[in-house]
Amino acid sequence: MMEFGLDARTEEYRAALTEFMRTYVYPAAEVFSAELDGLQDRWAWDSVPVLEKLRGQARQRGLWNLFLPGAEGAGLTNVQYAPLAEITGWCPQLAPAALNCAAPDTGNMEILERFGSELQRAKWLQPLLDGTIRSAFAMTEPDVASSDATNIETRIVRDGDHYVLNGRKWWITGAMNPNAAVFVVMGKSDVKADRHRQQSMVLVPRDTPGLEIVRAMTVFGYDDRSHGGHAELRFTDVRVPVTNLIGDEGDGFAIAQARLGPGRIHHCMRAIGVAERALEMICARADERVAFGRLISEQGVIRAWIAESRVRIEQLRLLAHKAAWLMDTAGNRAAHNEIQAIKIAAPSTVQWILDKAIQVHGAGGLSQDLVLAEAYASIRTLRIADGPDEVHRGSLARAELNRQRRSRSVRTESGGPTPGVVPTGKE
Amino acid sequence: MMEFGLDARTEEYRAALTEFMRTYVYPAAEVFSAELDGLQDRWAWDSVPVLEKLRGQARQRGLWNLFLPGAEGAGLTNVQYAPLAEITGWCPQLAPAALNCAAPDTGNMEILERFGSELQRAKWLQPLLDGTIRSAFAMTEPDVASSDATNIETRIVRDGDHYVLNGRKWWITGAMNPNAAVFVVMGKSDVKADRHRQQSMVLVPRDTPGLEIVRAMTVFGYDDRSHGGHAELRFTDVRVPVTNLIGDEGDGFAIAQARLGPGRIHHCMRAIGVAERALEMICARADERVAFGRLISEQGVIRAWIAESRVRIEQLRLLAHKAAWLMDTAGNRAAHNEIQAIKIAAPSTVQWILDKAIQVHGAGGLSQDLVLAEAYASIRTLRIADGPDEVHRGSLARAELNRQRRSRSVRTESGGPTPGVVPTGKE
Amino acid sequence: MMEFGLDARTEEYRAALTEFMRTYVYPAAEVFSAELDGLQDRWAWDSVPVLEKLRGQARQRGLWNLFLPGAEGAGLTNVQYAPLAEITGWCPQLAPAALNCAAPDTGNMEILERFGSELQRAKWLQPLLDGTIRSAFAMTEPDVASSDATNIETRIVRDGDHYVLNGRKWWITGAMNPNAAVFVVMGKSDVKADRHRQQSMVLVPRDTPGLEIVRAMTVFGYDDRSHGGHAELRFTDVRVPVTNLIGDEGDGFAIAQARLGPGRIHHCMRAIGVAERALEMICARADERVAFGRLISEQGVIRAWIAESRVRIEQLRLLAHKAAWLMDTAGNRAAHNEIQAIKIAAPSTVQWILDKAIQVHGAGGLSQDLVLAEAYASIRTLRIADGPDEVHRGSLARAELNRQRRSRSVRTESGGPTPGVVPTGKE
Amino acid sequence: MMEFGLDARTEEYRAALTEFMRTYVYPAAEVFSAELDGLQDRWAWDSVPVLEKLRGQARQRGLWNLFLPGAEGAGLTNVQYAPLAEITGWCPQLAPAALNCAAPDTGNMEILERFGSELQRAKWLQPLLDGTIRSAFAMTEPDVASSDATNIETRIVRDGDHYVLNGRKWWITGAMNPNAAVFVVMGKSDVKADRHRQQSMVLVPRDTPGLEIVRAMTVFGYDDRSHGGHAELRFTDVRVPVTNLIGDEGDGFAIAQARLGPGRIHHCMRAIGVAERALEMICARADERVAFGRLISEQGVIRAWIAESRVRIEQLRLLAHKAAWLMDTAGNRAAHNEIQAIKIAAPSTVQWILDKAIQVHGAGGLSQDLVLAEAYASIRTLRIADGPDEVHRGSLARAELNRQRRSRSVRTESGGPTPGVVPTGKE
Repeated sequence: MMEFGLDARTEEYRAALTEFMRTYVYPAAEVFSAELDGLQDRWAWDSVPVLEKLRGQARQRGLWNLFLPGAEGAGLTNVQYAPLAEITGWCPQLAPAALNCAAPDTGNMEILERFGSELQRAKWLQPLLDGTIRSAFAMTEPDVASSDATNIETRIVRDGDHYVLNGRKWWITGAMNPNAAVFVVMGKSDVKADRHRQQSMVLVPRDTPGLEIVRAMTVFGYDDRSHGGHAELRFTDVRVPVTNLIGDEGDGFAIAQARLGPGRIHHCMRAIGVAERALEMICARADERVAFGRLISEQGVIRAWIAESRVRIEQLRLLAHKAAWLMDTAGNRAAHNEIQAIKIAAPSTVQWILDKAIQVHGAGGLSQDLVLAEAYASIRTLRIADGPDEVHRGSLARAELNRQRRSRSVRTESGGPTPGVVPTGKE
Repeated sequence: MMEFGLDARTEEYRAALTEFMRTYVYPAAEVFSAELDGLQDRWAWDSVPVLEKLRGQARQRGLWNLFLPGAEGAGLTNVQYAPLAEITGWCPQLAPAALNCAAPDTGNMEILERFGSELQRAKWLQPLLDGTIRSAFAMTEPDVASSDATNIETRIVRDGDHYVLNGRKWWITGAMNPNAAVFVVMGKSDVKADRHRQQSMVLVPRDTPGLEIVRAMTVFGYDDRSHGGHAELRFTDVRVPVTNLIGDEGDGFAIAQARLGPGRIHHCMRAIGVAERALEMICARADERVAFGRLISEQGVIRAWIAESRVRIEQLRLLAHKAAWLMDTAGNRAAHNEIQAIKIAAPSTVQWILDKAIQVHGAGGLSQDLVLAEAYASIRTLRIADGPDEVHRGSLARAELNRQRRSRSVRTESGGPTPGVVPTGKE
Repeated sequence: MMEFGLDARTEEYRAALTEFMRTYVYPAAEVFSAELDGLQDRWAWDSVPVLEKLRGQARQRGLWNLFLPGAEGAGLTNVQYAPLAEITGWCPQLAPAALNCAAPDTGNMEILERFGSELQRAKWLQPLLDGTIRSAFAMTEPDVASSDATNIETRIVRDGDHYVLNGRKWWITGAMNPNAAVFVVMGKSDVKADRHRQQSMVLVPRDTPGLEIVRAMTVFGYDDRSHGGHAELRFTDVRVPVTNLIGDEGDGFAIAQARLGPGRIHHCMRAIGVAERALEMICARADERVAFGRLISEQGVIRAWIAESRVRIEQLRLLAHKAAWLMDTAGNRAAHNEIQAIKIAAPSTVQWILDKAIQVHGAGGLSQDLVLAEAYASIRTLRIADGPDEVHRGSLARAELNRQRRSRSVRTESGGPTPGVVPTGKE
Repeated sequence: MMEFGLDARTEEYRAALTEFMRTYVYPAAEVFSAELDGLQDRWAWDSVPVLEKLRGQARQRGLWNLFLPGAEGAGLTNVQYAPLAEITGWCPQLAPAALNCAAPDTGNMEILERFGSELQRAKWLQPLLDGTIRSAFAMTEPDVASSDATNIETRIVRDGDHYVLNGRKWWITGAMNPNAAVFVVMGKSDVKADRHRQQSMVLVPRDTPGLEIVRAMTVFGYDDRSHGGHAELRFTDVRVPVTNLIGDEGDGFAIAQARLGPGRIHHCMRAIGVAERALEMICARADERVAFGRLISEQGVIRAWIAESRVRIEQLRLLAHKAAWLMDTAGNRAAHNEIQAIKIAAPSTVQWILDKAIQVHGAGGLSQDLVLAEAYASIRTLRIADGPDEVHRGSLARAELNRQRRSRSVRTESGGPTPGVVPTGKE
């Protein structure tokens, strides 16, 4: 029986998390900004006291590692976690980190939990679960269209008991943070293997010789230091023991795919939270700003934006929940199309809403006084990160064309006419 | 527990209905056109043999009055009926009529079932349920913005044992059909009463003296005779017995509201079926048309349309299902916002997809050879019928603003800061 | 010196034509409708008395054949004719025909004037200039993407002193009219010649044996009988004397290209007139319709539509004038990109405005009571006719990419850095 | 006679300026960045050596103060200056400043030239014309909708031979620069006067006691230090001599209006230059980036963007030129609607193109490596600065409604029917 309500466990978590946001997270926002400004190392965002305190409070309340489905996490399904991830989107700078649910650590924990050796789990998964270290995921490269993972050019060559890495990466989120202790690096270990078996993934500790943090990338002028920035990296004869390989040689592509599904859903759910917050801000501003003698909440154009925002958010959330439900009930692979659909839909929808929110707030909306411009920059990035919209649309279209071809051939075999061919209502 | 799958009963109906569409409905489409052309009375669409046959077949298979929730119908919930209504949208000229699930009869049956007297049920509901007569719903007027039902100007004045009607109506769908035996007419019985108690609804048999069928309206050049056209009516001292009043005097507005919810969901679900069929046609055409040396299914712009269509249809369907579920579980009134949201979203989304479908088919897409242009005209109408988009957006915005005001005041009382006000990530 | 004003001659014509529209054309519109309804032959639109009268009045006032640049027409440049063509768009059913400036006759007259033999000019051009016969242009075919003229499959084979034609055509505008005395037919005379030399054009009198008018196509639900409908034609061993060849064998493609430039500009200018009329209707309606207690001209959403319409019309007109000016000063070929640009921009812009005009008028806007729905159908067609938007965008993009390549290579040779490569404002 | 070509003088300037851009400006961009980074005072952008050199070179070549129409500038008309302003948009960080044509100094020079006293011209206009000082324009306030200038709350009170200023301003562009020696400040001198006579404008030297530079505002994450940032200012009992009044008391509103016309045109022309550069970058990137085995310049979606960009830029430029021509030939007031139209059209069109340019460049497009993200932030600002789009649309709609009302009343008086009322083509 179709059912759109949340179960009791999710409702409990939602209540607790909403309370946590109001009581601890929102009041911490300004302190966080101030403490970031006071840092010695510009990038060491996770060492500020207010965050440490928040994380303690979250842990105490059982709001910790909610993202992780297995026994080591909270054991929530995707459908249960989705509404919680959305709430963390109300304050994306602080809330995910406070709950140890921030990318890219979440994805890294997932693959270590699923594919990591005993040794790897002890050495890196445990401290990540405890929140004592951070990590990064190094896949994107400057010289190739990395949306097609088979283009990766970084080399991972076995040399005795070691792998030797050479190559360049950029947009490695979180990697500017000195406390990001380990990098999950994707590269090619065998360029002669089958196209999807050429890649391997290895763990590279931050302090390994030959690994150079070249510079920080900015996004619309933001360096995103509040979650560790985005680094350009250079690997020159970087050596790690073979025990740092995740899974087997050639597993890289498959592991990367496995990592993507949940990650995309989490991103999209948080983006929906961002949209909800933006709509909240639109309504609040519209109820207090007067222009040409009337509250702007009484002006038709603003009302049309509010209604459209609500209509779009509702549809978006349902699509994300549906994808999460499919992942839970049929597996990530079966949910591939739905995950792709939400990956396409979420960023552009939320971007549209943020654009309106900025417009409603006037110049303040573009500035450091409000969260909107920074959120816009961050959401805009999602139309490129993990593959640009155009690639996902092309791929989803291919799937749709194939589905329709199969469906047509079934109908043809069964002898019946098809709806697309038979005209009706002719005059 | 959230659940997006259909239940067993719905799946059974879907299988039966899909089979029915392929085996009976599609092959009947061309015959239907030809038989319409052969009619003596241009408007007597429901008297053609092929339709009579289809209706018999539907009845035999239990695919009859599926829309009606109570004992007199199939007893389906809105969530169960929604996916079936969608399927009838694959062939909107024939399928809804074949199943006795066509507007405006459905809405009229609903109100007679809920508000009709014994007499009214015997005289009109039963033959409507049996499909032996048709009906019309006369609300819209040419001179006033009828999206606000309180503007209605037609007068219904008690005179002894009769009501006397005077006024004009237009866009009365189905009313050109000589077999549309009864009209449900909305008018004002007491202009001094409270704003929402001025209206009453009466049943007016077609042959009542003083009721004049003035002319047929066209929509983008179509007269829509395949479902009885759209009539302009004039009521001049039309007298009906007081037993023709539905409910009590002053109940008109409330009955009209009650009628709207399910009607809108049905329209939207059928529109989604139209969109699915259009997407099917896009894919089929794209796989056979060659332009500049390549199948157009290999061209990026067409693929982007296909992907976007899929993404938008998925979101739309989920929103419609959610609204249906809310109606089932919390009542039509509680589902008001969701019904309004789908009323806003469906027409413009489906119109966008039909526009692309026409473009993919070239000039043929505009012509009588395919269903697309006629579907476009029909869907475009939905952005005006039952209130233009702008009115619904205004109303949904008002609801959202109110919701946010309540939410802000709760937060203010509880002393916590609000997410819209506290900036984070300041530099 | 840049100059956007109209010259004195154009201003004179504009004043005369505006006066003519108000005094004669508008009042004739209802009569025209009625007379069309009274026709024996449904398609003989140009034989109704009111049109004959209008044409006499136009001729008397020197408002005749304004479109034709040479001595046989009014001798206007494209820049001078453009604002006049726009005015005829205020009433596209009547005004172009009243002035003998209606497609497809205009294009046919142009090619006869430029490429026709003495004989052809005497026999067909003169009566067309006099407005005593009509014509059609038969190029589009049902089975191929005719936007690429090299796809044409109709065969024109020389046999002694005759050409023999075989093939199918559709969407041949005006051809249902019994008074359309001659068809300009495009076909292939030599499938082995160079790609753009395979086509020839011949004149086929309507009554030639073997030429069959198969049926009338409809656009949405309109059969466009007010300008002769759109015919499907079948040519079966249709024989015409070799003197009916226009130009030489193999000239077909070049003549078709020459015909396109002015034709497109005329279409676009008329479309701009349609948009102006729609905006006029929006404003008039907005100033008289009350909804929820206020004139809708006071509602923000309507105002935003009005402003956007004005902004878009202004830009569109300037683009059309610029293209016309380029045609006058540098030739049709040099103006190719600009003509393509206006061909892309005009239909979708005007469609957008018409959609808003319909919405402002409610259900009436969809109906036969106003010109809007019919205009919408007609403008929508322009996104497909003469090649779909997508083909023109692809072609314009190719031109732009080539232009940029040349520009880059010049810059590279001259040793200077290029703006696209040198970043500025780095942090 | 309509004429779209540029005159000889403009062509000469264009050639010279294009050459100047390639030879001097582009190569200076990286140096400028580096020198900015090396500044002691973060905001003293105009003191870096490379800019000083550029300005010398521009002056030597007669590319100096081109914006200023009178004898003190280059004496160009708006139509002549417009294509030159566009070229400076290819490198908006450097080119306008290099030519002494950068806002807000240009607008300030204009009002001093038109309204300044001898003393004011000697003291401030001359050094501005020489480029030895900079200036700022202080109008926008944080607490009121400053798009309506009558809302201004800063007070300017006469006290003997002085005016005393109190109030807050923000988004005062250029004011962070220590070399911005004088601020043009708008405030209210008489709150009881007529609505548009309450405001006055005074010159406030930067070092006047009581004038506090509170902080720098950021736009997205940019502080725009490359043109002096955007300051928040506080005026506390700031005293200036009465000779610092520009014009008379009460002239403030009128002077502000006079300042707006040319300023908006300049902004829009530069924005068109930004769009041209973005399109150039799109084409260059599309010709070198391979994705899924093909150059992306061969992919249909990218091509559609290129074509659309070209079509939109052409229309935008024509609208700007038309507005400039009207300003030249009929005056700024007569060009009001056209200026408003280009103010509405330019930012959103250019934003659309920049969004596509970013998407084509992938993550790099968001970063400091390319100019696109910063240009996007800057262009986005224009949808708010000088009044948000919504205000301008509302105002343009009001003008259109009034124009149409006058036109309807003329037609009604002359007795003729109107095109908006008479239907044609009825069936």
